[in-house]
Parts: sequence; structure tokens; C-alpha cells
Amino acid sequence: MPKDQTPTGEYEIFERRESEARSYCRGFKTMFKKASGSELTDDKDRTYIDFLAGCSSLNYGHNDPDMKQALIDHISRDGIAHGLDLHTDAKSDFLKTFEEKILKPRGMDHKLMFTGPTGTNAVEAAMKLARNATGRENIIAFTDGFHGVTLGALAATGNGYHRGGAGITLNGVTRVPFDGYMGENCDTTTILEAMLQDGSSGVDAPAAIMLETVQGEGGLNAASTEWVQRVAELAKEHGALLIVDDIQAGCGRTGTFFSFEKMGIEPDIITMAKSVSGFGLPMGLVLVRPQHDVMGPAEHNGTFRGNTHAFVTARVAIEKFWSDDTFEKELAEKEKILSGAMDELAGIVGDTARLKGRGLMRGVDVGSGELAEEICGRAFEKGLVVETSGSDDEVVKILAPLTTPTETFRKGLDILLEAAREVVENHKTAAE
Amino acid sequence: MPKDQTPTGEYEIFERRESEARSYCRGFKTMFKKASGSELTDDKDRTYIDFLAGCSSLNYGHNDPDMKQALIDHISRDGIAHGLDLHTDAKSDFLKTFEEKILKPRGMDHKLMFTGPTGTNAVEAAMKLARNATGRENIIAFTDGFHGVTLGALAATGNGYHRGGAGITLNGVTRVPFDGYMGENCDTTTILEAMLQDGSSGVDAPAAIMLETVQGEGGLNAASTEWVQRVAELAKEHGALLIVDDIQAGCGRTGTFFSFEKMGIEPDIITMAKSVSGFGLPMGLVLVRPQHDVMGPAEHNGTFRGNTHAFVTARVAIEKFWSDDTFEKELAEKEKILSGAMDELAGIVGDTARLKGRGLMRGVDVGSGELAEEICGRAFEKGLVVETSGSDDEVVKILAPLTTPTETFRKGLDILLEAAREVVENHKTAAE
Amino acid sequence: MPKDQTPTGEYEIFERRESEARSYCRGFKTMFKKASGSELTDDKDRTYIDFLAGCSSLNYGHNDPDMKQALIDHISRDGIAHGLDLHTDAKSDFLKTFEEKILKPRGMDHKLMFTGPTGTNAVEAAMKLARNATGRENIIAFTDGFHGVTLGALAATGNGYHRGGAGITLNGVTRVPFDGYMGENCDTTTILEAMLQDGSSGVDAPAAIMLETVQGEGGLNAASTEWVQRVAELAKEHGALLIVDDIQAGCGRTGTFFSFEKMGIEPDIITMAKSVSGFGLPMGLVLVRPQHDVMGPAEHNGTFRGNTHAFVTARVAIEKFWSDDTFEKELAEKEKILSGAMDELAGIVGDTARLKGRGLMRGVDVGSGELAEEICGRAFEKGLVVETSGSDDEVVKILAPLTTPTETFRKGLDILLEAAREVVENHKTAAE
Amino acid sequence: MPKDQTPTGEYEIFERRESEARSYCRGFKTMFKKASGSELTDDKDRTYIDFLAGCSSLNYGHNDPDMKQALIDHISRDGIAHGLDLHTDAKSDFLKTFEEKILKPRGMDHKLMFTGPTGTNAVEAAMKLARNATGRENIIAFTDGFHGVTLGALAATGNGYHRGGAGITLNGVTRVPFDGYMGENCDTTTILEAMLQDGSSGVDAPAAIMLETVQGEGGLNAASTEWVQRVAELAKEHGALLIVDDIQAGCGRTGTFFSFEKMGIEPDIITMAKSVSGFGLPMGLVLVRPQHDVMGPAEHNGTFRGNTHAFVTARVAIEKFWSDDTFEKELAEKEKILSGAMDELAGIVGDTARLKGRGLMRGVDVGSGELAEEICGRAFEKGLVVETSGSDDEVVKILAPLTTPTETFRKGLDILLEAAREVVENHKTAAE
Repeated sequence: MPKDQTPTGEYEIFERRESEARSYCRGFKTMFKKASGSELTDDKDRTYIDFLAGCSSLNYGHNDPDMKQALIDHISRDGIAHGLDLHTDAKSDFLKTFEEKILKPRGMDHKLMFTGPTGTNAVEAAMKLARNATGRENIIAFTDGFHGVTLGALAATGNGYHRGGAGITLNGVTRVPFDGYMGENCDTTTILEAMLQDGSSGVDAPAAIMLETVQGEGGLNAASTEWVQRVAELAKEHGALLIVDDIQAGCGRTGTFFSFEKMGIEPDIITMAKSVSGFGLPMGLVLVRPQHDVMGPAEHNGTFRGNTHAFVTARVAIEKFWSDDTFEKELAEKEKILSGAMDELAGIVGDTARLKGRGLMRGVDVGSGELAEEICGRAFEKGLVVETSGSDDEVVKILAPLTTPTETFRKGLDILLEAAREVVENHKTAAE
Repeated sequence: MPKDQTPTGEYEIFERRESEARSYCRGFKTMFKKASGSELTDDKDRTYIDFLAGCSSLNYGHNDPDMKQALIDHISRDGIAHGLDLHTDAKSDFLKTFEEKILKPRGMDHKLMFTGPTGTNAVEAAMKLARNATGRENIIAFTDGFHGVTLGALAATGNGYHRGGAGITLNGVTRVPFDGYMGENCDTTTILEAMLQDGSSGVDAPAAIMLETVQGEGGLNAASTEWVQRVAELAKEHGALLIVDDIQAGCGRTGTFFSFEKMGIEPDIITMAKSVSGFGLPMGLVLVRPQHDVMGPAEHNGTFRGNTHAFVTARVAIEKFWSDDTFEKELAEKEKILSGAMDELAGIVGDTARLKGRGLMRGVDVGSGELAEEICGRAFEKGLVVETSGSDDEVVKILAPLTTPTETFRKGLDILLEAAREVVENHKTAAE
Repeated sequence: MPKDQTPTGEYEIFERRESEARSYCRGFKTMFKKASGSELTDDKDRTYIDFLAGCSSLNYGHNDPDMKQALIDHISRDGIAHGLDLHTDAKSDFLKTFEEKILKPRGMDHKLMFTGPTGTNAVEAAMKLARNATGRENIIAFTDGFHGVTLGALAATGNGYHRGGAGITLNGVTRVPFDGYMGENCDTTTILEAMLQDGSSGVDAPAAIMLETVQGEGGLNAASTEWVQRVAELAKEHGALLIVDDIQAGCGRTGTFFSFEKMGIEPDIITMAKSVSGFGLPMGLVLVRPQHDVMGPAEHNGTFRGNTHAFVTARVAIEKFWSDDTFEKELAEKEKILSGAMDELAGIVGDTARLKGRGLMRGVDVGSGELAEEICGRAFEKGLVVETSGSDDEVVKILAPLTTPTETFRKGLDILLEAAREVVENHKTAAE
Repeated sequence: MPKDQTPTGEYEIFERRESEARSYCRGFKTMFKKASGSELTDDKDRTYIDFLAGCSSLNYGHNDPDMKQALIDHISRDGIAHGLDLHTDAKSDFLKTFEEKILKPRGMDHKLMFTGPTGTNAVEAAMKLARNATGRENIIAFTDGFHGVTLGALAATGNGYHRGGAGITLNGVTRVPFDGYMGENCDTTTILEAMLQDGSSGVDAPAAIMLETVQGEGGLNAASTEWVQRVAELAKEHGALLIVDDIQAGCGRTGTFFSFEKMGIEPDIITMAKSVSGFGLPMGLVLVRPQHDVMGPAEHNGTFRGNTHAFVTARVAIEKFWSDDTFEKELAEKEKILSGAMDELAGIVGDTARLKGRGLMRGVDVGSGELAEEICGRAFEKGLVVETSGSDDEVVKILAPLTTPTETFRKGLDILLEAAREVVENHKTAAE
């Protein structure tokens, strides 16, 4: 993210009263007032193309008109706003739609566990399910994985800055190199396999192996199908559940609803959040196969488990985008545009650049966090909100709304390329 | 909670596809469609008085017209729905209002940390803040305390059923008896004091002492002012931060905005959630004194930290109810009514009954979970939603919206008393 | 312990090459060369009466002639020195003697587990046995308990200085106040009981309750029979094993072989070390009832489990001292002498003095660590080795060999009283 | 180890009263009475050549005459048997000898910390030192490493059977593949390097990297010099201490006093036990560079820290064997004999056999635990005590006393080869 800038005037309230933990606002220094589709508008009526999309929480863009209308209707008619986990019509409708449009067509028998409406809470529940279902404690997670910052999930998160925030030992997770971590010629599943097969490896029999198919925060590291399949096989062979954390990569981000759909695997547990509500409303969801649905009533609970407003918009999102393959086809088209732009960006940056990601979560590792931040900062000046990721923030990461009109999409990408060109040019000039 | 009943027909979808972890819906077997003020309406158009109020998440009732209008306006004008932790007008407005109406009048210099929008996430952040601010790991928590079910918060939660769900050792918390736990004649702060003073007690120097002034889930155990003050003193003497978890007892539930306002203490950290959004929308908030605001940018993060819709309604809630002392005075009146009804309920139950709670979170320990559930089940048949709490669910717990009109309030209480009378009478008859 | 003094000359090698962790040598600054019975002799041929006795590891004195002869015979005839846990005649003989003289007369069916030859290793094994036998993790330990400093045992040890040495979170132990910790009028088993009975206390169902009947390192805190019995009952009621750590208080130190013999309890597991070899040789022993003897072959192991030389001397010790009640009767006599001297010591110190301990592990809490160390330091100058204990080293602790001849015993006590008188007198003079 | 056989007669006492945790005695079913040099004698006066040597605790053989005489002299003259960590002449003499003969010639400035007299206790102390010296918690350990079974050390031990005995989560250790673990073509330090360099790897900055240069229990896996050097470099680069656990591989077992002497590394901490006392007496020792000698007085303690009898024999052992290079040269000769025999053994077993180990801790991976146990069982019948190691006990492991006379050495090896031939032949016959 672009470096902090001293707030003045209208931002004083944030500096005075909001915790130092605030972050995005430090890089994108303006006051946002409204948003529609792929555009944000600030209080000076300046408009920005949004290629951050709430970190993939706004895959369908801001204030989608259909979801918006449904939500206004729901509120207007005094629909339930907060319903604990009581039966509500909104939840029933969501469940039916999710079953009909998502689960059945994919042959999935999973049940839905509504956790506190955050990704980290979904991950905590998934880890508990796996531990209780297997009677084991150890969970295998991968280098550069990001699963959240509450204590259970944080143990599975790789990022040292976040881990350091714990203030206490993080337990119960064994770390294994992700796909590509040891270079192209090393299949890291061989390490996993060796450690699981050897009773003296010190890696205790795992309750689960948890992975993201594309590590969004970790730098857009995309696992290959073969690698994921091998991990899935190893999980099965060793009695471990396979958890796919699809919080950032799910909901169409990679081109299909689930990120793993075309990989031929059947995860035992899937965690979702971010875009699952469709509208950016908080929602957390764990999909779990019936045989592993072992938490008793309220054993994992939380007041906001099931956010009724989110059920309303989530239902509309699924009906609108996932009733047939139209949306998927659009995504495939858009992916080509993005892919081309990333090639171009890499070309601008030069030989050190590496293409990252998959589907519509792509980026370029530009070699250093400083350069990536400079490019994003310049882009912001030009009206584009775009962020970095990776362990050193070295990846310029594109997470545009999936619904971004082609013209806007190209425009945003052009801004980014222009910003990159200027920054790289400046560096060359400075070096001469 | 009333026992499970076999779902049929319209509930099939829940049984087929929702996780076994679902709970409230098992006891209140109907399908809720709308809600207004203190009343819920189901799909058969039957109306229920709501004395559960989203477990104190709906202190201002369902769909408060002013919040509702503000939210519809916000959505209608394409206000930001999801803004990460960017600067938004909605957040700015909320911060200003919270500062003006809540913090300044109470002489508080706390900063606001917006965490993932759940109580447990706020608690996790509070525990991290304390551990990082002090460089210590141990956190003192109390018997019967409830602080959430993600792994960090769960270590501080007393309930064995929830703890067992962890599937892994829970660390970093020392447990001390809460006020009244050892009977009336034992001041349990003497135990805390002895253990803190003794370098060989095995209780490591604490980062924080965390308490609820009234333990909502733990059975409406209300700590005395003297006890809380003594704990606060001990925290100060031993270099520990004082964390008040005001998630359930805050937002007016005890008669004042914060539950500890009249206790003459200054907590270093306060956690809020539940009713802080006013409308039942997910929101989590940590108030932390500036000197302890030590988490770096995004060190504790989460996509839904700061729920923009919640900022909108939370601002209205504070303006509407906390701009002057009108609401507090109403609460004092209502407390008398509630207190009288609880006396009456205890009288019906008989000698074993014990009055529990404080302010507008009150109840009666009826001696057994079975009896409490029976009373609540009977009340539900009569049109009242009311729940139990306590380690054996032995407390009938009243958490009516604070805004409940007097007539409705009395009506709900009458239903409860009638239900209790019938149940007790039946037991007597059965015993004869 | 008396304060450090700068080593010179012959002690240089210790300062140069022995770790800073060395401790007793700092207080008793001389070079010991030989020892017999209750006397140590240094390299200047000065003789000291030993009231420390290897912290109760030399209950039968130094170089007991019978054990010494048996050991020399064993070594001379090329008896096994190191036998892993193979069958050896020395182990067989020890087992038979221990069964015949110790277990059978006391109606005990316990089996013997030879662990690595240290107390902490025995405690680690005991904790593992309890956790594996019950499938639970939590172990209840008490304030001021001392059980060793390896990581598992250290979690159960109360002393903050030792705990701080861990450098990592200590897990799996819940701390409860020991007998007398909350003053005379508080029966601390009521706290334990309340927390065990309440499913929401946050104290997880315990695998074991582990206690010393007299806390040697913790300040000679002697539990009453009633208190220990109540703890034993609570353990049984709640499915927890009762572990008595008899490492310091066992082997006759309280007047009987086991410290709990006259308390009418049947511990499930007993840990022994220190004097169990009789000769001061390293030995660790866990007694465990057959139904809890659940560790598989070598599951808990260690190269030095079973120290064959120690088996030789241990057998002689048991045959010599525990074949009939002669020794016990002598101990009863000696206890009276010690008790009288402690009264006298308390009288010298004045009103703040408190009598501590039981049997032949007794002392006086003189009110401050400084005073206690000064008294011990003065006694050392006069030819008596005596140490302090307690969380602030505030207790002058007598751990004379149980075999000390009466004359020597009185002489040592006289030195101590004289030292105390001089120190107290000096303080008075200084204060005037 | 050979399978258990039902005890009868003279072994009843072991079955009746010794814990099920006993192990070696199950495989070598006889009663040993005496031992001298490389031979054990049982109660039927049958003599066995000992190629187990107390798991490398008897590197100088049983009852070495010089150590034996020194120990008898010490005991006879009432030398201190148990001296806590007081200054004693025996300790002083040992320290001086160790400094003169071991440390100075090797240019080592390490200090000696005497821990409880077991290897696991030395490892616990080493881990504490590293954690306290660096203020970090994480310790890197390797697959198949064995460091002991007390809770701290056990976390670093790879063996799943031992780990499972903990009954509680093991924390604070990250596991990395040892040299050769991923096959010949994978330098596993690249994995370690990648994870240490990446701030998002999830591997927290380590306090220490702990390794055995030859993993004795893990299957005689010998690390290459290059690999160890690279690990040492990585430790230095990343601010971690290097701990070499030389408990089994030290004291001449690999041909030099320390196992790493010819590797050009300078470990910050070295743990020793097993043969350090020379005579098989319990002794634990940590060598630590002065700048990391950070434990305070008694911060890590234990009654038997420093076993005075062991000091006596340890001094003799060092004087006798390590005053010049005579012994090392003998070891080099013996290594050739052993190496040849292992080639021969591998030839008998066939293509699946793999040579393991280094120096005088060598063996052959015969492909299965069953086969290895059968060979060892047959050898025992023929008068040779020899054991297996490895995660599946698949390695026939030779740990003969280093002082074994050549003739006896060859004789023992011949028995082993003969046993192997018979077993392999039988299998072939059975298969036909």
C-alpha cells in the first residue's frame, strides 16, 4: 500500500479517534462518499475506478442495482435485520437458492454453517470441525497462506507481521512450502508426502490440510491443478480433511464460483466470506460435508452468525450471476484482457517481473515493495484504486469487480500501465 | 433453550442444508418474516413479543424507524456498503458522534479500533492489545465469563461446552472466581490479590484482567461496584490492563451506556459489539486508551472491519438515544417494572429461586435448566420469545429491547409469569 | 540462600567454566571434599553439620556405611553400572525389597516406573500417565508447588523465577490455592470444588490433581489431613487421578515412608526421587496403580531410566530403615526435638515468626528473605549448612539427615539458634 | 527390538511390579549380573558381546578398570556422593580436566552447565538458554530427530510414538527435513533457507536451530559436512543459536570427541549426556558460549544436577582417552573394520539394503523393522546384544563400546553377519 501521509482537516477525526491499526485509509487519502459498480466517488466528487473491490469482497461491484433493490425492499417491509440463527424467510430463501444453483449442479452434499460474519471466524470454525471430526490437533497450512488474525486462524497464517501481533505462542499448525515455493523444479508435495509417511517426521497426524488455491494476500501464488490434486490425495491417504479456504479466491474470482471447480477435487470443508453476500455485507460461511458436520448446537456460536441482510443480497447475487453459465463466459473474456495487460505490465517493469495469479485475481511481482507501492500510488493519483500483496508487498494485485464493464476495465488497466511506465521511467532517469 | 423439535415441511431446508451447529431455531420453531420494535412476526402472521432481542443486539428494538430511514437513504444514494477501512463519510460521522455524545461527556480519551464485526473479534483484538502493550502473555478471566469462541477469546470463556469445541489446548488465561462465586461471605478479589502478590503462585504477571460487569451468558451474575473497583485497583497495582467486555452489558442494557459508568473505574480497554450498531447489524468495536493503542497498521485486520451500514445506524442510535439523559431516565423506570416482575417470578418458583442480574438484564435462577426451559417453552407458546442462560441454562433471562413500550413490556412479563405459574402448578400436580 | 561472594583462587575454575546457573555454591563458599553421616568436610578439614542434606536427598546421611559397602561390593565384582532397562539382578532385588517392605505392608498395588533419574522426569511421566489414562489435558496444581523445571513439570511449578526461565508459554495446568493460602478461615478446597462442579468455570475437567502434602520449596507449607482428604475426594468425584509428588516429603522426611501414610488416602500416582536411592545417587520413580499404567514400552523412555548403582543402595536403605518400625519411632523422637527448637527459633525472631512444616521438614518463616539469609549465613560461619525456602526465601528450613545422631542434631540446632540470636540482636542494636 | 516374550519364573517380579513402559528387557530376555569391557554376563553365566553399549552410554565399555578404581577410591574415602551444585573437589577436578583436555585444544570458550543428569534435561536447558538469550520462542528441529521425552524436548523429537505420549499439544518447534530426507538430489537447507528468508513463511524467527550430526535414534542418518555448515550459516544469518545435540554422537562415537569437530562449525550450545560420565553413570551437560549463558542462579535447577560419582569417572575417562590422539587413531582403525562389516551385511540383505551412519555409529537399513528385529533376535541367541533404530526400527544399529578389543569386535560382527545370513536364508527358503 502507498505510504502514509499526514492527515489534515477533514481526516483529523480519524487520526484523533481511530486506532493506529487503521491501514487502507493511510494509502488512499481521500474521503469516499458513494460507490456504484466499479467506481468510487469521494467527497470532492472525484471518481476512482476500483480495482481493489474490498479485497475481493465486491466481486459484483458496488451497490448492484438488483441486490440494492432487494435489500431496500427487505428493510422497507420491516424484514428481519438481526435474527440470531432463528428460522427466517431470508435464510430459507438463501439456503434454497444456494442448494439449487451452487451445490446441486456441482454434485455437492455439503451443509452450510453460518459463523460470525468474517472470514477468520469461518476459518476458526473449519479448523474446529476438522479437529473434532478427526480427534487430531495438527493442521497443515502453507507458506504465505493467509487465513485471518484471530488466534486459531492466525496460527495458520504465514505473515510474520500478523503473527507477531498475537503476543502469545501460536500452536497446532505445521507449515509446508506451497506450490512453487521451492522453485519450478521442486514439487513441494513430495515434502508433504515424505513428512506424512514418516512416523518420525515430527509432523503429527493432521486433522486437516488447509490451502488457498490462489494465495491472495500471500502474493497471488496460484497452485497448479496437479499440485492441488496431489495434496487432496495425500489428505485422503492420511485421514486428514481437505479444507479449501476460498474466501478470497471464491465467488467467481478465478472464473468459476469455487476456485477449485475445474481441479477435480472434493474438499471436505470450504470456507467463504468476502463476496459471498454479494453486496459487501459481512458474511461468513463454512461448507462442510455431512459426515464432518460434528459441532453440536451452538458449540461454535456468535451473535451475528447469519447476517440477515446478507442473506437477502447473497440470494440475489447467486440467482443473478450463477443461474447459468453466462457470467462464467464473460469472466473468461475478461480474463484474457487482464492477462494481456499483465503481460504488458511485466514488460514495462522488465526482466525481474513475474506474472502472478489466475483467473481474475492477477498481478505482477515487480521485484520490490517500494516499486509496487510507487506504482499503486501513482495510479491512485490518476484515479485508480489498486493495491499490493505478497510478503514484501511486492506484487501489484488486480482485484477488479468481476462485473466491471469492459470499457471501464480497459480504462483502469490503462491507468495502471501508464502509472507503471511513469514510475519506471522516473527511476531510469534518476539512475542516469 | 427449549428442546429440539423435529422439523417438517418448511423447515426441511434447514435440516437438510444447515449445519448441526444451528441452535436458537431449534427452540423457537417457527419461521420469522418481519419484526418491528419489540415484536417479531412469523409466516403465519403470528406475533411474538421479543424478550431475547438478539441476545441484547437489539437494545433499540427491531427496525427502529429513524435508523431504518437513514439506512435506506444511505443505500438509495449509493452510499458505500463496503469500505474496508478507508475514510468514508459514514465512518467519519460515526466517529464524530461517538466522540461527542459518548466519549467526551464521560471524560474518556479512548480511541476506536474497528475489528471484524463480531464480539469475539473485538475480544481477540483487546487481548492482543493488552499482550503487546505489556509484553506479557497471561490474561486473568473469570469463572462463567463468556467472551467468544474463536481460539483466543475461547481461552477466556468459561463454558465447558464451548471450550470442548476447540479441539486443541486453550492457552494463556488464568481463571479466578467471579464476584459471588464462593458465596456471599467470600470476597473473591482476595484470591486474586493473594495470587498476584505471591511470586510463587504460579499465576504469571498478567497482561490484563478481563471481566464483564454482568455476566450475560454465564447466568446474569452481576458484580458489585466494590468488587469491580477492587479488581481495577489490583490491575493497576500489578501493571495489568483492565479490559471490560461490555458486549452484552453495554449500550444501555444496565441503565447507562457503559455498564461500568457508575462504578468509578476507567477501563484501559472496552470491547463492544451486539447493540453498538443499533440496528442489529454486525459491528465490533474496541475502545482503547491512546497509550495502549499499540497495534500497527493492519496488524490486526479483517475485510469487514468497519461495516459501513452499521456506521450509519450506529450514528443514528447514539444521536437518538444518548444525546441527553431522557433515555436513561426511561430505563430507570423500566428497571423498576422488571425488578418487580422478577420478584414475582421468584415467588412463583419458590424458595430455591434466586434473583439475578442488574439494570435491564435480569432474570431468575429457577434451580434447574429443565424448569427454565419448560417455562420459556410455555412462554413461547403464549407468544413470548425468552431464553435461558447460565452454566446449566438454569436462569430465565430477560433481555427485552430497552425501547419496549411500557404496555408491551408489562404484557410480555405477564405472559412469562403466567407460563411460570402453569409450569410450576403442573409440577406440583404431577408430584401429588 | 546466602548472597553471592566473589570467588577467588581455588574457585576460579567454577567462575571461569561453570554456568551462571550454579547456585548453592554461591552461598556456601568452600570446597567440600568428603562427607559422612550428617557432616561435611571441606578441603581445609573444617567440618560442617549438614542440615540441608542435599535438599532431602540424603535422608539417611552421607555415605551410610551399609550402602557404601554394598555399592563398593557391587562395583568391585563388576556389577552392572548401566543397564538401560534390561533385567538386572540389582533391579530385581530392589523391586522385591520395595514390594515386600514398602508396598505390601501398606496394601498398595502400585507398579514402579523407572524414569530418567530426576524428580522432574518422574513428574513429567506422572503427568503423561494421567493425561493418557484419562484422555484429558488439564492438571490441577497448587500455588507455591514445586515440581521441577523441564517444560511439562514447570507448568505445574508455581515459582515465577523458574517459570520465567521457560521462555515460552506454559500450558495445561490450572492453579488453585493450597491449604492455608487464603488464611486460616478459608478452606481452599471449596474453591476447587466450586470450579470443578461448575461446567462453566473455565477449569477443564482435570486429568489429575497434583500436590505435595508439604511444599518443601514453596516454604514448608504443610497441608492438613482434612484438606488432603477433601482434595482426594474431589479428584475421585471428578474422574481425576490424584498425584502425590512425594519427592521431597517422602522417604521418611515427615516421619513415615510416604508423607501421606496417615492421611487415609490412596494416591493413584506417586512421584519419588531425592532420597529414594538412599545414598544421594540419581534416581526417579513413579508409583502408579496398575489400571493407570498406560504408557507403552519405551513410550516414556530415557537412557538412564533405572540407575543400577542406585538400585543397589536403595535396596539397602529400605531393608535397613523400613523393615520394621524402629526408624519411625526414632523419627518421632527427633521430631519433638526439632519442634521444640523451632518454637525457640520463632521466639527469638519474634511476633512475626510463623512455624512451618511437619515431621522432620520444619522451619520458621522469619518474615523476610533478607533475615532468613542472614541467619543461614551466620550459621554457616559457625559450621552449619542450612538453607531457606519459600517464595521470598523467607523460611529457614531444616532438612537434617533423618539419621542424625541426637547429639549432633542438638548441636546443629544450637548453632542455628545462636546464629539467629546474634543476627536479631545486631538488628536491634542497629535500629537503636 | 526383538518381540516380547512371556516372562516366567525369575522375571515375574518385573511383570508384576515394573511398569509396562519397560522396553529393552522385553527383547533381551535374560537377567544380567555383571559386565566388563564389551561383555555382559547373565545369571546363567552366559556371556554376551555388547554392541548396544547402553545406547552409546558405555563408549568406554563396562566397568573400565581405571574409572572403577577411582570410583571405589572415592567412595571408600567418603568422597561426596551427592553435592547439589556445591563446590566439590570432584567437580573442580572434572572442570579443570575438561577445560584442559577438551575445550582448550579445540579453542572453545564454552561454559559448562550441569543439568539434571539426563539427556532430555540437558536439551530442555539448551532450549531455555536459546529462548532466553534471543527472546524468541521458535526452535527449528529436524525430521527424525530425537532429543528426549520431557515436554520441552519432546516437542523437538520427531518420533510419533513418543510424541503421542505427551497427551497434550507440543509447542514451539518448527520441523524441517534433515539432510537426505528428500533424497540425494535435494539439499534440504534450501527449504530451511527459503522459509527463514520469507517473512510470510509462517516460520517464526528462530531462537535456535537444533540438530544431531548423526541421528542415532532416527535411523543413523548422517548429515554431510556441507549440510551442517550451511545450517550453521543460516543460523548465524538469521540470529538463531546453533545447538548441536551430541548426546548420542558425542564422546568419540563418530571418531572424534565431538561429532562436529571436523566440520568447521562452532555451535553456540552443545548438549551431552550418555557417555560423558565414562562409566554409564547418569550425567547431563550443556556447553554454552559465555554470551549465551543467560540463566540466572538456579533458574534451571534440579537436585541431581552434577552427579559427583559421575564427575569422578568422567575425569578419568577424559584423562585416559582424550589426553592425546592415540584413542582417535584406534577409532579410525576400528571404523574401517566396522565399515567393511556393514558392506558385508548390506550384501547379505541385498539390493534394498542401505548403509547408514558414520564413524562408529553405523548400521544397515535392511528395509523393514520385522527383518531387523529378526536379525537382532537371532544374534542375541548367538550371544550378541544389538539393537535397531529408525522410524520403523528398520536399521540394524551397531553401537559397540569404542574400546572393544579388535578380536571381540570382529567376533561380534561375525555373529551379526551369521545371524543375518541365517535369517535371510530362511526367508528365501520360506519364499520358495
